[in-house]
Amino acid sequence: MKIIHIVFLFSFLSFTTSQASVNDFCVANLKAPKTNSGYPCKPLASVTSDDFVFHGLVAGKTNNTFKLGTTLASVTNFPALNGLGISAMRADIGEGGSAPMHTHPDATELIILVQGEFTVGFITPTSVYSKVLKPGDLFVVPQGMLHFVLNTGKGVATAYVSFSSENPTVHLLDFLLFGNKLPSNLVSQTTLIGLDQVKKLKAHFGGSG
Amino acid sequence: MKIIHIVFLFSFLSFTTSQASVNDFCVANLKAPKTNSGYPCKPLASVTSDDFVFHGLVAGKTNNTFKLGTTLASVTNFPALNGLGISAMRADIGEGGSAPMHTHPDATELIILVQGEFTVGFITPTSVYSKVLKPGDLFVVPQGMLHFVLNTGKGVATAYVSFSSENPTVHLLDFLLFGNKLPSNLVSQTTLIGLDQVKKLKAHFGGSG
Amino acid sequence: MKIIHIVFLFSFLSFTTSQASVNDFCVANLKAPKTNSGYPCKPLASVTSDDFVFHGLVAGKTNNTFKLGTTLASVTNFPALNGLGISAMRADIGEGGSAPMHTHPDATELIILVQGEFTVGFITPTSVYSKVLKPGDLFVVPQGMLHFVLNTGKGVATAYVSFSSENPTVHLLDFLLFGNKLPSNLVSQTTLIGLDQVKKLKAHFGGSG
Amino acid sequence: MKIIHIVFLFSFLSFTTSQASVNDFCVANLKAPKTNSGYPCKPLASVTSDDFVFHGLVAGKTNNTFKLGTTLASVTNFPALNGLGISAMRADIGEGGSAPMHTHPDATELIILVQGEFTVGFITPTSVYSKVLKPGDLFVVPQGMLHFVLNTGKGVATAYVSFSSENPTVHLLDFLLFGNKLPSNLVSQTTLIGLDQVKKLKAHFGGSG
Amino acid sequence: MKIIHIVFLFSFLSFTTSQASVNDFCVANLKAPKTNSGYPCKPLASVTSDDFVFHGLVAGKTNNTFKLGTTLASVTNFPALNGLGISAMRADIGEGGSAPMHTHPDATELIILVQGEFTVGFITPTSVYSKVLKPGDLFVVPQGMLHFVLNTGKGVATAYVSFSSENPTVHLLDFLLFGNKLPSNLVSQTTLIGLDQVKKLKAHFGGSG
Amino acid sequence: MKIIHIVFLFSFLSFTTSQASVNDFCVANLKAPKTNSGYPCKPLASVTSDDFVFHGLVAGKTNNTFKLGTTLASVTNFPALNGLGISAMRADIGEGGSAPMHTHPDATELIILVQGEFTVGFITPTSVYSKVLKPGDLFVVPQGMLHFVLNTGKGVATAYVSFSSENPTVHLLDFLLFGNKLPSNLVSQTTLIGLDQVKKLKAHFGGSG
Repeated sequence: MKIIHIVFLFSFLSFTTSQASVNDFCVANLKAPKTNSGYPCKPLASVTSDDFVFHGLVAGKTNNTFKLGTTLASVTNFPALNGLGISAMRADIGEGGSAPMHTHPDATELIILVQGEFTVGFITPTSVYSKVLKPGDLFVVPQGMLHFVLNTGKGVATAYVSFSSENPTVHLLDFLLFGNKLPSNLVSQTTLIGLDQVKKLKAHFGGSG
Repeated sequence: MKIIHIVFLFSFLSFTTSQASVNDFCVANLKAPKTNSGYPCKPLASVTSDDFVFHGLVAGKTNNTFKLGTTLASVTNFPALNGLGISAMRADIGEGGSAPMHTHPDATELIILVQGEFTVGFITPTSVYSKVLKPGDLFVVPQGMLHFVLNTGKGVATAYVSFSSENPTVHLLDFLLFGNKLPSNLVSQTTLIGLDQVKKLKAHFGGSG
Repeated sequence: MKIIHIVFLFSFLSFTTSQASVNDFCVANLKAPKTNSGYPCKPLASVTSDDFVFHGLVAGKTNNTFKLGTTLASVTNFPALNGLGISAMRADIGEGGSAPMHTHPDATELIILVQGEFTVGFITPTSVYSKVLKPGDLFVVPQGMLHFVLNTGKGVATAYVSFSSENPTVHLLDFLLFGNKLPSNLVSQTTLIGLDQVKKLKAHFGGSG
Repeated sequence: MKIIHIVFLFSFLSFTTSQASVNDFCVANLKAPKTNSGYPCKPLASVTSDDFVFHGLVAGKTNNTFKLGTTLASVTNFPALNGLGISAMRADIGEGGSAPMHTHPDATELIILVQGEFTVGFITPTSVYSKVLKPGDLFVVPQGMLHFVLNTGKGVATAYVSFSSENPTVHLLDFLLFGNKLPSNLVSQTTLIGLDQVKKLKAHFGGSG
Repeated sequence: MKIIHIVFLFSFLSFTTSQASVNDFCVANLKAPKTNSGYPCKPLASVTSDDFVFHGLVAGKTNNTFKLGTTLASVTNFPALNGLGISAMRADIGEGGSAPMHTHPDATELIILVQGEFTVGFITPTSVYSKVLKPGDLFVVPQGMLHFVLNTGKGVATAYVSFSSENPTVHLLDFLLFGNKLPSNLVSQTTLIGLDQVKKLKAHFGGSG
Repeated sequence: MKIIHIVFLFSFLSFTTSQASVNDFCVANLKAPKTNSGYPCKPLASVTSDDFVFHGLVAGKTNNTFKLGTTLASVTNFPALNGLGISAMRADIGEGGSAPMHTHPDATELIILVQGEFTVGFITPTSVYSKVLKPGDLFVVPQGMLHFVLNTGKGVATAYVSFSSENPTVHLLDFLLFGNKLPSNLVSQTTLIGLDQVKKLKAHFGGSG
């Protein structure tokens, strides 16, 4: 029976081997040109267990204006996520700090607060949806919504965040509006924010014009 | 041969009739509860040619702050678009007017300028992509990008716009930031826009707090 | 505060820069091999504002059998549309002319009539859905449906059309049936159109066999 | 250990039970209104093994004009296919018969010939792709392509066909063109098929006008 | 200017209000029949901030055979996740315990270890991919892969897990094979696990036959 | 009229030619690196009718442990299936043989029994769905479900199978559990299958550890 079995084993493996590389997973070859649907796959033969692990989703530095430290694991530094539609981030916010208004145009964000207190909210054309979170609370920000987070508790607050995209982008409103080279009066005209204010914030966020 | 044919005709029609309603199209029954993927279908028997036409994609009124007039044909007033992933808008902007900064979180926007001059642009974390458009020019704003339009020419400028969604949403930045009930100091803290400015714009856009 | 800010600015930009190229947009590199989901992306560093504009969606020539002039802007001449699922066309039809029976196997078509009169319709196994359009009217042809347009008014009629695909194909029935090398009797057998008629139309549309 | 285990068993089952109904499968409740993405699900408690079986994918009758017999198992008579994106058909064609020119706007067709001989082909704007099939041969017709099948062998030919849709539609060209109420001269104008021929085929296929 | 503005404000809000409910989010109405793509949406008017928060992603009880405690937040208890393609779980495993072999047929799993040590792995037809995780390490299990987790460290190990589905299912291999009513000899024949072993495990996992 | 026509013909063909290659089909270039969404396309100019046919979906050899013979036509040997989301297999099982417990993580399986008798079933966390099939019966196994097939009739049983993926993978449970290099005690701990049994099956299926 063993000999017959081996025949069977090999014929089965021969057709599963070639397939496995495509459909079981597609670890990104980050050196190949990107496509609409992500990165080409690394050859199966060079994939190892190390591809599926990411080390160091640890606290980011919070010594900045917003007291915000983030560490993101997405396809560009964790290539096994390619095509899997998920990624993760650790966010730490110092006492009194915040994650300023921003959007993720291509991802829903699911926040798991594990320490401290967050006041988090997102804004739609008709409402604000906002809650105070305690450790063990989740909050979901649907894709593309403008949102913010405040540390409204004592000490550093820490959250694990997952995104419904392997490569989420972060559009910080201030950098969009004030970190660019658009003429200040254009920014003022299209936001109704006063020209002086625009110029001041442009100076702060490295914009010109 | 005619008699045999009729047998054939009926047997074929009997199975195509029941299918046609699902896969050829799915005109929205707007009175039924919405789902994740749009509206349930109107029964095929009550679908008529009138369902596939929309009257009046005409110039909207421009007598407002931004001199912006828009007329949108989306699934909520043109139910045949249900499930088809496309919609259209006519936009007219008076001389010197604008479409202020906004996003469409769920749709790419393709602008066809047919009269006048537009200066249009969108902003990413790393760049501004902006062009002056003349009649016959197209401009595409990828999904979720913050963008603006200015009428930088003489007289009214007119464009036809299509969206890659049958139900695009419009998130006007000013209404998100200043038309809500969030405390003004929270808005100021999470945008770094000065508190006085926030309060002034809140008054202007109908917000409170 | 400025110094601290700069630290923050750079750390944020460093992770957003690498992402923006993938998910904010993916301008086609038309020289690279196509994939199932479109073209690989042009490197972000070589993308400019010019990529997002298309010049010349103007009237096509109508001096042909059908008095039909079309100008199409799709991913192959407007590479920024890559992956965005939308494209546009201008169609002009001379008085008495038509767009003959055809399908778009991979795209819904949304017609905006801006001048003249169209009689447009599509055909399913159970019905014809047809309307006369006036300027400002929209008509939607669901994906894959056989459809036609007639200029039934005075003078040239003009429409802007958008497709729910960045690369719509046009399958003109006459070219499919009569522009090929299939034996005429095969075409006759599988359509029941008379053999003489098939041969005549094959001669007209450049087919052989 | 057994007692502890039972606690565990129940807690696990309690959360898997409620989920299974949504994501493991969604047998169609054909009496509920259809949606864009198919039918609502039958309650899990009323799903039985019988839902996953379809009896009678047997030879259809071929005593008609085209000598074509088909039996289709799609979501409308095999509701377990709901949401699964696949269906199947048996096709029998008598000697000298055919499946006339048609499209499936929403499905790729994969043909497995098991008896006799087929000559099958599909037509694109630039080419005809056609082959003679023997038993054990497959042929694939990509979604939306106009195609035909001829029995070019001896005796009845039989194939099993699968579609990449749970609810494929069949658009027979003759029924579209000639089985409707469109004026004959409109059909002639938009196909260039002679008016006499159009009238003759309208009479044959039950159309009027 | 204020009066004109108000006209503008209302016209804009009137069209954004109706849209927002569909595309900004679709909180599940869990009492309505499910569809292929999830649950119908709760009316926008009854959605509040409370819908977007989930309380109590806390440690589950580990006093069972595997020393495994899990708390899952998915669409069935956190209805705002409907349509958003993401969910989260907290997993605690006592010293020496494990998450036994299982699959998630419809979701990729992203593990964030925050305390203790995990040995985690998944198995494909050609390889095992396995790693020892320390706090701050991530591991990704691609959709549908058979996988396991062991607590190979000291004390309880804790992880936050996210899934690329709002309603992931858990298929524990032992419950599939041994918790059912299939005849023991059928299970033995289709797994080659000895009949005595199958009977013993059936007794343990509550199966019969 | 003929001359005018030719102008028209060429202008139309010139824009359809370039498109056809992308959207009508995308025959895989198997030598190019795979991507998340399949293979890059073979250039249109080198595609011929031969690409759309697959020869030899004939009976596989059944002289093995399980008396199971399979022949699979998927994108890796039938490249025209690339991007079309469908594939096919012929399965023959000798009298008393079986297809042992396995999953297809990425494909629904639709079985068409054409000869003999199958007893087929799949297992969810809450139920077994199983039926005895006769020729002409279909059975559907939803994506990712653990399932089995037994030949419970006389003589060889034969089925044609289609998958809702162009590249389905086969995860045979025995090869996953016992064909690997995981330590036997780890396999035993995470399945509760006795260690002796695990070692015996590891020996049988070529595993080590």
